[in-house]
Amino acid sequence: MKGIRIFCDTAFAEQTMALLRQGTEGHVLVAAQNPAASVLGKSEAGPEIENVEIAFGQPDVADVLRARKLKWIHLTSAGYTRYDTADFRAAMKQRGIQVTNSSSVYAEACVEHVMAFLLAQARMLPQNLSTQCANGAAEWNALREGSRLLIGQRVLIAGYGAIAARLVEVLAPFRMELVAMRRKPRGDEPIRMVKLEDFDAELAAADHVINILPDNAQSRGYFDARRFAQMKQGAAFYNIGRGATVDQNALAEALETNHLAAAWLDVTDPEPLAKDHRLRIAPRCYITPHTAGGFTDEAGALVRHFLSNLQRYEANQPLLDRILE
Amino acid sequence: MKGIRIFCDTAFAEQTMALLRQGTEGHVLVAAQNPAASVLGKSEAGPEIENVEIAFGQPDVADVLRARKLKWIHLTSAGYTRYDTADFRAAMKQRGIQVTNSSSVYAEACVEHVMAFLLAQARMLPQNLSTQCANGAAEWNALREGSRLLIGQRVLIAGYGAIAARLVEVLAPFRMELVAMRRKPRGDEPIRMVKLEDFDAELAAADHVINILPDNAQSRGYFDARRFAQMKQGAAFYNIGRGATVDQNALAEALETNHLAAAWLDVTDPEPLAKDHRLRIAPRCYITPHTAGGFTDEAGALVRHFLSNLQRYEANQPLLDRILE
Repeated sequence: MKGIRIFCDTAFAEQTMALLRQGTEGHVLVAAQNPAASVLGKSEAGPEIENVEIAFGQPDVADVLRARKLKWIHLTSAGYTRYDTADFRAAMKQRGIQVTNSSSVYAEACVEHVMAFLLAQARMLPQNLSTQCANGAAEWNALREGSRLLIGQRVLIAGYGAIAARLVEVLAPFRMELVAMRRKPRGDEPIRMVKLEDFDAELAAADHVINILPDNAQSRGYFDARRFAQMKQGAAFYNIGRGATVDQNALAEALETNHLAAAWLDVTDPEPLAKDHRLRIAPRCYITPHTAGGFTDEAGALVRHFLSNLQRYEANQPLLDRILE
Repeated sequence: MKGIRIFCDTAFAEQTMALLRQGTEGHVLVAAQNPAASVLGKSEAGPEIENVEIAFGQPDVADVLRARKLKWIHLTSAGYTRYDTADFRAAMKQRGIQVTNSSSVYAEACVEHVMAFLLAQARMLPQNLSTQCANGAAEWNALREGSRLLIGQRVLIAGYGAIAARLVEVLAPFRMELVAMRRKPRGDEPIRMVKLEDFDAELAAADHVINILPDNAQSRGYFDARRFAQMKQGAAFYNIGRGATVDQNALAEALETNHLAAAWLDVTDPEPLAKDHRLRIAPRCYITPHTAGGFTDEAGALVRHFLSNLQRYEANQPLLDRILE
């Protein structure tokens, strides 16, 4: 199958573009006139997508709905908030357009990022790195006694997809108790799973609550004052999903009142937070600027992932990382 | 076997002392008049040890050499520098005194600490936590591109004992290349081992060099200017062994010249370093105050480890964590 028109709206560097051109030889690459600023931003609306079969990047939703020849959209992100609406889902289904994302490209980096958070929290890294205390001093004893072993502690994961599945593999040697929530457990997950309606009952027993929820109408503000209050005193909260799934004032309150031991956030709403935002001032709130998915040659990995899906598309094989099904 | 006189020179809190008294019922506990200030400090010389069969803590070397009834010394630390001399070793051997340490008590905490270092380095945590940059900004792109995946990277471990063996288990799911050096490889280690004389040839290929060497006459200043120069440009150096095994000026130089990407040190020489020490000022040098082994109920775990060794001693079974053999 050759001669497919493929729209790309991501402004990759020349070396990565060369990889994309090489891997799509025999097809027709159509570049966006106003490409997306980053793999997280959407591209501006433009007419280029109307005459293509495949769109690779972050195409404008209205453009997609108008593009009558489109058969497959491959997103450069793991998140897909702007496409995750009932209307868009129905339109894709009705027109037989497949939608895939890049979650397996980002899973490893996200897992290493949340592991860095988890271990930095257990080993009190922020406190340890900012002191010059002497062996045997009261502060030193407090640091040694305050450091927790992960062994035997309980992790509760909200949102079980590619990232959580890989996180479970990496956590295995630490011998923790692992529980995860997904809307429709499949039964083949390697850890204990709970459904949405049973999630709240798990909050009180968790030492670490890891939020990997996508942002959609159902998940917005999911972690609210009531759920933070249900968490164990001294538990830690992590967010590598989307900022909008958290009531940030409620989280700040939980930190200010010392109900939670810490929050480690890679995502906030908005990004970045204002310099004087309550979460910037809240104690033990550690924020990275939505970099969990990043890694050296991320762009190359994105293109290789798309090309491997393109080979499947050409061969009529099932695509990797299908979403909105 | 009852009525054994057991010397203890550690000033445990009352709850821990109760555990020790309970576990040694039927024996005679002899407390030091001048106990050690911490599990890392030595106790003052005193006559109490002269009439005991077992010493538990950090007994004074000269006292040990005078104590004619001593049969077994159990140290509350993993390190044993002050006992690790040819003279002391020979005296213990000649008099049939067994020496054990608490390395298996500290292994888990040390491994989690070095994993926190390794992942914080890979995910650029210090840089990520200190910025408020926006998605798509030049600094943001640099952070995402500068973050490395551990997968496929190479770790070189200097010193293979209880800590390294456990580290290898925890690193397994990250699919890194692992190489370790020990003086006498046994052949049953789960990763590629090299001897002391082959260590230098490994330096150039490692992305992460983890120093877990004990401090003794052979290891003092082992990581010197020559070895840092042999390391790969951009590699990271970690020390959870002993500070004296590193030429600290050479390390500072390697950081100042950007030859090394970072140093993560839980141990220094002395501890703590002076506020204006060159390593405190060197770029990308991250220091924790010898807290890698600490964890909640560390004292309880130390006593339980001693008591489980005491049961073995009573039953004439091989002791755990034997050293100086």
